[in-house]
Amino acid sequence: MKLNVYLAGEIHTDWRDQIIAGAQGLAVTFSGPVTDHAASDDCGVAILGREEQKFWHDHKGAKLNAMRTRKALTDADIVVVRFGEQYRQWNAAFDAGFAAALGKSLIVLHGADHQHALKEIDAAALAVAETPAQVVQILRYTLEGELPQGSA
Amino acid sequence: MKLNVYLAGEIHTDWRDQIIAGAQGLAVTFSGPVTDHAASDDCGVAILGREEQKFWHDHKGAKLNAMRTRKALTDADIVVVRFGEQYRQWNAAFDAGFAAALGKSLIVLHGADHQHALKEIDAAALAVAETPAQVVQILRYTLEGELPQGSA
Amino acid sequence: MKLNVYLAGEIHTDWRDQIIAGAQGLAVTFSGPVTDHAASDDCGVAILGREEQKFWHDHKGAKLNAMRTRKALTDADIVVVRFGEQYRQWNAAFDAGFAAALGKSLIVLHGADHQHALKEIDAAALAVAETPAQVVQILRYTLEGELPQGSA
Amino acid sequence: MKLNVYLAGEIHTDWRDQIIAGAQGLAVTFSGPVTDHAASDDCGVAILGREEQKFWHDHKGAKLNAMRTRKALTDADIVVVRFGEQYRQWNAAFDAGFAAALGKSLIVLHGADHQHALKEIDAAALAVAETPAQVVQILRYTLEGELPQGSA
Amino acid sequence: MKLNVYLAGEIHTDWRDQIIAGAQGLAVTFSGPVTDHAASDDCGVAILGREEQKFWHDHKGAKLNAMRTRKALTDADIVVVRFGEQYRQWNAAFDAGFAAALGKSLIVLHGADHQHALKEIDAAALAVAETPAQVVQILRYTLEGELPQGSA
Amino acid sequence: MKLNVYLAGEIHTDWRDQIIAGAQGLAVTFSGPVTDHAASDDCGVAILGREEQKFWHDHKGAKLNAMRTRKALTDADIVVVRFGEQYRQWNAAFDAGFAAALGKSLIVLHGADHQHALKEIDAAALAVAETPAQVVQILRYTLEGELPQGSA
Amino acid sequence: MKLNVYLAGEIHTDWRDQIIAGAQGLAVTFSGPVTDHAASDDCGVAILGREEQKFWHDHKGAKLNAMRTRKALTDADIVVVRFGEQYRQWNAAFDAGFAAALGKSLIVLHGADHQHALKEIDAAALAVAETPAQVVQILRYTLEGELPQGSA
Amino acid sequence: MKLNVYLAGEIHTDWRDQIIAGAQGLAVTFSGPVTDHAASDDCGVAILGREEQKFWHDHKGAKLNAMRTRKALTDADIVVVRFGEQYRQWNAAFDAGFAAALGKSLIVLHGADHQHALKEIDAAALAVAETPAQVVQILRYTLEGELPQGSA
Repeated sequence: MKLNVYLAGEIHTDWRDQIIAGAQGLAVTFSGPVTDHAASDDCGVAILGREEQKFWHDHKGAKLNAMRTRKALTDADIVVVRFGEQYRQWNAAFDAGFAAALGKSLIVLHGADHQHALKEIDAAALAVAETPAQVVQILRYTLEGELPQGSA
Repeated sequence: MKLNVYLAGEIHTDWRDQIIAGAQGLAVTFSGPVTDHAASDDCGVAILGREEQKFWHDHKGAKLNAMRTRKALTDADIVVVRFGEQYRQWNAAFDAGFAAALGKSLIVLHGADHQHALKEIDAAALAVAETPAQVVQILRYTLEGELPQGSA
Repeated sequence: MKLNVYLAGEIHTDWRDQIIAGAQGLAVTFSGPVTDHAASDDCGVAILGREEQKFWHDHKGAKLNAMRTRKALTDADIVVVRFGEQYRQWNAAFDAGFAAALGKSLIVLHGADHQHALKEIDAAALAVAETPAQVVQILRYTLEGELPQGSA
Repeated sequence: MKLNVYLAGEIHTDWRDQIIAGAQGLAVTFSGPVTDHAASDDCGVAILGREEQKFWHDHKGAKLNAMRTRKALTDADIVVVRFGEQYRQWNAAFDAGFAAALGKSLIVLHGADHQHALKEIDAAALAVAETPAQVVQILRYTLEGELPQGSA
Repeated sequence: MKLNVYLAGEIHTDWRDQIIAGAQGLAVTFSGPVTDHAASDDCGVAILGREEQKFWHDHKGAKLNAMRTRKALTDADIVVVRFGEQYRQWNAAFDAGFAAALGKSLIVLHGADHQHALKEIDAAALAVAETPAQVVQILRYTLEGELPQGSA
Repeated sequence: MKLNVYLAGEIHTDWRDQIIAGAQGLAVTFSGPVTDHAASDDCGVAILGREEQKFWHDHKGAKLNAMRTRKALTDADIVVVRFGEQYRQWNAAFDAGFAAALGKSLIVLHGADHQHALKEIDAAALAVAETPAQVVQILRYTLEGELPQGSA
Repeated sequence: MKLNVYLAGEIHTDWRDQIIAGAQGLAVTFSGPVTDHAASDDCGVAILGREEQKFWHDHKGAKLNAMRTRKALTDADIVVVRFGEQYRQWNAAFDAGFAAALGKSLIVLHGADHQHALKEIDAAALAVAETPAQVVQILRYTLEGELPQGSA
Repeated sequence: MKLNVYLAGEIHTDWRDQIIAGAQGLAVTFSGPVTDHAASDDCGVAILGREEQKFWHDHKGAKLNAMRTRKALTDADIVVVRFGEQYRQWNAAFDAGFAAALGKSLIVLHGADHQHALKEIDAAALAVAETPAQVVQILRYTLEGELPQGSA
């Protein structure tokens, strides 16, 4: 068994790197959005031409980013969605809903303080984790049936 | 042509009532989540028994609410998602993603100040409106081909 | 909103009648398997001719019953699966798996003693209930947003 | 032609090993659930934290196991479901129903004494076998058109 | 429960009339192909203009007939396919394959002499009947759980 | 049998009226795009606000129109696509492709001079007609098995 | 581009070999049913045990063969169905219907004398060929855009 | 991440070559229709035999071409549709509609003068480009998150 895992959500901390590093040696292919915030915001106008209105500037960019996101979400077996401390992060929740409707296995990754606000998303998930290390343990268990040492 | 329209998102203002009142006489059947905030939060434990942990209290409730939401989203032709000024509203964004993945026509309803934060959701929508009255006009145009007076 | 609810599983107690009676007045259409045990066992040979072998006797009957079950499961919005105290009830679990794969909302109804043995099915459900009355309360809440009195 | 075969059900005898050994040289990739009973029961709390209630202890574990099961069932061409002599084995029947709804080719493997209780599941299957050796013969015939020697 | 039943295949005897008459009072809506042989053969050129080549004459007709057949097959819950004594009846077998791929419940209706030649189609069916009366009994049992009198 | 028929394409002649008038008494529900050319072009800005750029003016309108078109195409059993003498009519061809991918029965309606340019679309259709009267005859034959008088 | 091509139908002449030989060097993977007639007829009882009744003898065999057929049909891009001069060949027509419902590209291969009897199946096909050499030319053209020499 | 990209539409300029050359080194597999205009027009009769009527000549060819087109469109992640200055190009618009209904990411490539006539297709796209170089930049950004130099 091999797994395609999409890492959605927050792009300001190194949680993706932690998971990818922790999962070395496992049969996992990771994907994720473009995490260069400026490139992600400006890609539409950088490639397809300037816009006067901020709305259309953003619109062109969001649509370009959707090409990558839709492809990766559709190919994924498991979608991990991370909610951080800052910003609205509505696109993270949107990706979670998109993944849920496609029947993907969902892992939500967030701190305890967001528990109530994320209850609908957690309810659609197969796991709710607090740390990247737990996500790695889930992937290892799913692929190899192996639990973290000392856990029993 | 008849339309099923699901009204997702913010539950603290009367935007649903405005749309339903404005659409009187149109061939639209509206649905929406349970908007009694306390009932929505506590339904799980009220029916299925108390939980010590807040997480499971919320979990049981969120799952019960999902029965209604999934049914109504699946039956909908058009999903209107309203983002208000307060709270995280991650479930609104989750519903939008869910609806998008099902290929539903999406109308996003929000103020100008949320424009940048909602750009991915707006990019998946067929319309971005600022007022309930605009949503009514869209429904009327879609069903009857009629534009608001004075608009030409 | 109207709901189609399929009542799967145990056929030796009156739980279906309790739910149907309790849900009177709600916009629910119920369906279920043939609950006449003898007819259900013998329908195949009664209509299509005797079999020497018990295996084919059962086979013909099970296939006839599948016409009703598949139709009703496919049309259902919510599938309630009841596990009783007796018998193997593998067809109840089969129906639960079938419903889960179709994305139906699943309510599992069983006593506390079966909790461990049913954990995989409970994990696929949106609600785990112990009494028919709770199922009625779930249907009422889903349709009308109304919680049982005294529950708050 | 290559086949993905998921081996569902009973985890207390070596039937999986027998099939895998017998199928050596055939173009088959096998998958199955985690068969370490203790790990399978405790994985949820071992990775995601302790639960007071047995129900939630089991719930977290069952959901983690579902990540592997759903992925493997979805990827499978053929699902073999084994029913043994002990335990309720409702998750085996659940997997059979799930596989049937996805249109997978189903092989049920059980002793003659379970024939009546499994009639609905047998009726949804393309083969009902009594021994692992028969399953191997089915796989060989399906892939290479070759029948067991002496069978004619 | 209501059933849509498509009556496919042989058009030279009154088996459809027998089933429809026998099913009076049951919640069944029947559909079928155009059974006027001449109209069915010539509809394409009669409406869309003459063809020199018999192949294209037939082609235009077969495509027009497909509009009705595809609609009715797609809407059907149960497809009854009747094989008679004469002609090739490849379109009957084609309809059976089409219905099977759509997951419809299939009832095959044929005499004992065709048993070997129809074994693949019978194997995809939920019932193999010899008489229209048996089809009626299946529909009655499926809808009302009632077996033919004297059958027990 | 009842049919939903979507009338796509050219909006400058009265072909829709001819078909609807001719089909009176048949069990057909017709739908079509908004045929008020000015309203169709300007609906986006009339409801959702002015745009400086012609591209976004058109974009907002085309998306609003898509709500009606997608709903009606999705609900249709048969899609009639009319190509007239003027304009590019790329949206007609787009609707034809959309309908073909959804597996709808396609009738293409065009004059002989467009035969070569429309060959890919004709090849995806179940009928190629030249007049609205022929479309009516197809609908009548499909529903009632009746050919035009004098056609034999 | 690579193609999976399933070669369905008649098993008494060497048409499969001709196509496979002719297509050497093309990016095509061929599959087909078990063409050993005796093995195909007896596989069920040879592996799963004797049956008294010819019907169940055939039934068990047809179901085993369905594992291979369904897998190969589902994986195919193009399905070639050959109708020969002898036998009923209802399973060939069944496979054609199954493939059509899955949206596969269909090539029908038959002599001119079967033209009228196969008109519904030809109407569902993208090509009707008379010789294996034509099938090879279609595959070559589809993959490499190359027409047979001297054909212009 | 790897991308399958189908290049649909205009076949008289070298835009496909420009994109393929520009995308060298990227993880993209390109496909497209047969671009030899004469072969594409005559393939049907060249392989399957002459037709008297131009309509059937074209019909046979269009259907053969559909085998390649449908396969490639179905396998594609991204569909680029180019509209040139000449001809009706209805098949380009048909491919766009087909791709949109399948949920493919759509890039439309056309000059500013076609903006109004293509507004419905542009509205269904994730990007509207004017040059092949922009398409290459979109593919590079989607795969590697890299914007064209100097674009910021």
